[in-house]
Amino acid sequence: MTRTLDHPELADVTLQQVLEALVDPVRRRIVTQLSESGAGMSCGTFDATVSRSTLTHHFNVLREAGLIRQSYAGTTKLNTLRTEDLEARFPGLLRALLDATG
Amino acid sequence: MTRTLDHPELADVTLQQVLEALVDPVRRRIVTQLSESGAGMSCGTFDATVSRSTLTHHFNVLREAGLIRQSYAGTTKLNTLRTEDLEARFPGLLRALLDATG
Repeated sequence: MTRTLDHPELADVTLQQVLEALVDPVRRRIVTQLSESGAGMSCGTFDATVSRSTLTHHFNVLREAGLIRQSYAGTTKLNTLRTEDLEARFPGLLRALLDATG
Repeated sequence: MTRTLDHPELADVTLQQVLEALVDPVRRRIVTQLSESGAGMSCGTFDATVSRSTLTHHFNVLREAGLIRQSYAGTTKLNTLRTEDLEARFPGLLRALLDATG
């Protein structure tokens, strides 16, 4: 059985959802780590000071906002930043936010 | 008597406060109108569908976050966007947000 996860189409990604996702500092840290890694990262490899279930919630928020793509690799969920999609939807925004996060 | 209002120094402006301010769509509309006007606007000239007291609250949040400067011109409060300050603090961020707000 193939499990799939819902991702918003690019045109349906809203600035409101992106900002609601990124107003949370833990979620900004996740996005920063994904950007620095440049590759898919499994949920367990993130450096976060929150519980696993809280982390899962944060990943769901980021996915539903259109910021990350999640896919299954066996039993592991891999996360990648939707860098090009976001650049197409909101030019310059992700880069400026990542730079500002430092 | 000269009345003055507190404004954060540029170095004290945080991304967290900026995002908390701009996650609110009414505050984004205020910032957009200020950007389009390019000049100081009094609180009463804003096109907003909220009460005067709510609007005053939004302006306070924007000022405390470092996004706007407020000054008195007689009994009127004039609001200007801290465009150059923000560009120096978080390059590209305000422009990308304004473009994304559309």
